[in-house]
Amino acid sequence: MLKIAVDAMGGDYAPHAVVTGAVEAVKKFDVCVVLVGQEEIVKEELSKHKYDHSRIEIVHADQVVEMHESPAVTIRKKRNSSISVGINLLKENRASAFFSAGNTGGVVCAATINLGMLETIERPGIAIVMPNMKGVSLIIDAGANIDPKPVHLFQYGLMGSTYFEEILGKPNPSVGLLNVGEEASKGTDYVKETYQLLEQSALNFIGNVEGKDIFSGDCDVIVCDGFVGNVTLKVSESMADTLTHFLKEELLSSLGGKIGLLFAKRSFLKFKKKIDYSEYGGAPLLGVNGVVIIGHGRSNPKAVMNAIKFAAKEVDRNINQDIIEKARKVHVKA
Amino acid sequence: MLKIAVDAMGGDYAPHAVVTGAVEAVKKFDVCVVLVGQEEIVKEELSKHKYDHSRIEIVHADQVVEMHESPAVTIRKKRNSSISVGINLLKENRASAFFSAGNTGGVVCAATINLGMLETIERPGIAIVMPNMKGVSLIIDAGANIDPKPVHLFQYGLMGSTYFEEILGKPNPSVGLLNVGEEASKGTDYVKETYQLLEQSALNFIGNVEGKDIFSGDCDVIVCDGFVGNVTLKVSESMADTLTHFLKEELLSSLGGKIGLLFAKRSFLKFKKKIDYSEYGGAPLLGVNGVVIIGHGRSNPKAVMNAIKFAAKEVDRNINQDIIEKARKVHVKA
Repeated sequence: MLKIAVDAMGGDYAPHAVVTGAVEAVKKFDVCVVLVGQEEIVKEELSKHKYDHSRIEIVHADQVVEMHESPAVTIRKKRNSSISVGINLLKENRASAFFSAGNTGGVVCAATINLGMLETIERPGIAIVMPNMKGVSLIIDAGANIDPKPVHLFQYGLMGSTYFEEILGKPNPSVGLLNVGEEASKGTDYVKETYQLLEQSALNFIGNVEGKDIFSGDCDVIVCDGFVGNVTLKVSESMADTLTHFLKEELLSSLGGKIGLLFAKRSFLKFKKKIDYSEYGGAPLLGVNGVVIIGHGRSNPKAVMNAIKFAAKEVDRNINQDIIEKARKVHVKA
Repeated sequence: MLKIAVDAMGGDYAPHAVVTGAVEAVKKFDVCVVLVGQEEIVKEELSKHKYDHSRIEIVHADQVVEMHESPAVTIRKKRNSSISVGINLLKENRASAFFSAGNTGGVVCAATINLGMLETIERPGIAIVMPNMKGVSLIIDAGANIDPKPVHLFQYGLMGSTYFEEILGKPNPSVGLLNVGEEASKGTDYVKETYQLLEQSALNFIGNVEGKDIFSGDCDVIVCDGFVGNVTLKVSESMADTLTHFLKEELLSSLGGKIGLLFAKRSFLKFKKKIDYSEYGGAPLLGVNGVVIIGHGRSNPKAVMNAIKFAAKEVDRNINQDIIEKARKVHVKA
């Protein structure tokens, strides 16, 4: 059975949310989980649950990388952190994948340095699944690489396309380049160079896409630099929160609104589920030599459970081998 | 009475929406409007309305810059377009401000070249008002300058701060730099350099802000490059549309939802008004030597009317003089 290493100390609601999500995952899916973290604390948390003890083990890690700490801390000062120890389990083949909802920069840094990159891939990218009008789209990179070269962006397109096909199940997904307009002449120099690389490739490149296209559902894989991707992600998340807040405020401020809310409760819950990040659980860090999933800082048990599910699927489909083979065929030197 | 030049041919619903908005503006505010466009068409449209004929005049412009045309077309090939003619009215002091919902790049290009820049300001920036949890924030730049230098970004902070104070009425507004994290060490090189310029200035600089802070209401003026600003704006707009669509779909798919919608109709309308861009009408193009307002392509009559209102306010407060005086005090060479 696949063994997924999970950072028990990472995320705003750790260890409670992580341990609960891990327990749910072993109940629901054919996986084993290795909880990495401070043993006493994790044990205590686990003792609150009933589960098959042969399916969850604990690996002790002395230190915790805090959310605000610089990524370099993970590899320089905290070699015994749950992130570093978890990544090492992967490196030593004692686990097939690693999930953490902790310090994103720390996970990227530890994974890149300790696992190394996939053959021919030059930089890792974080891929995020976002709901849209017709289904989902994948944005890559959401913050691993804020100052990429055209070849990095091109490889994000390649990796995102592979992920979309293998994990999200759509053959030959469309790939778009996030830009300020549709014409090939638009954008900064490195974006224009990326356009050329993508156009000359065998990918299903549909040209430039704009901010509005992220939600239209007309493009599957959306390529951008980590700065733009990170802002886009955070804008979308906080906007969903803000709109929900505005709407609730309006509804609760009148009797008609309150009655309406009562009648429409089921609709609101379905709506909430549709825009809920935790359905996908986590964001794969693509390009490193191993399956690594990064969770949202706010990960709840459901998000952790789903991240474990997707991690297992990634291992199962062996997408890293796929990426290597595709990249070999279209390799472009930086 | 102030005279506002309005591009009658610009925008997806021109000339109908523009002319209707202009008629409403002269009824509601102490302004005169000069409608710039193909005379016969504008006349025909105007004939559908009752209004004080001394308050609206038409200035003929032979050509129209289409939405998809390159900005350079406006100044090279279409010197008789409604955009070029409108900007020239401003240059010749025959109008106090110019509004267009037409080709944004065209307006930026014509304004920059024909009006020139304000003393000590190096590049124009588009400022967008966005609703947030506590009121509104101003994002600058939303797409005029996709590859800015630190000094341009610094001047966006200065201009945005002046606009927020004079037009949105908050003394000493806070200024934040859009980045991928809060620490001063975060971001690309030019963002880090901008951080230093803003920190050393007399502006009320509160440091880096993230995508989520655009809606939190904790920062008044948010500075970013035009690439990130453009993507952010389009993501926000399309997300508002998408969420409204999802919610409507869910509500209409069940009886409870339909009844709820009926009861809560007034709440939904108030919610819609809160997130409605047309309340602010348009985005000022700051830095050029004249008052220029850029409208959304989808501008409806209300948006046009409100843009005219804000244009008049900008002229009235003489914010360009304010910007020049502030910029003189803190001038930084590129």
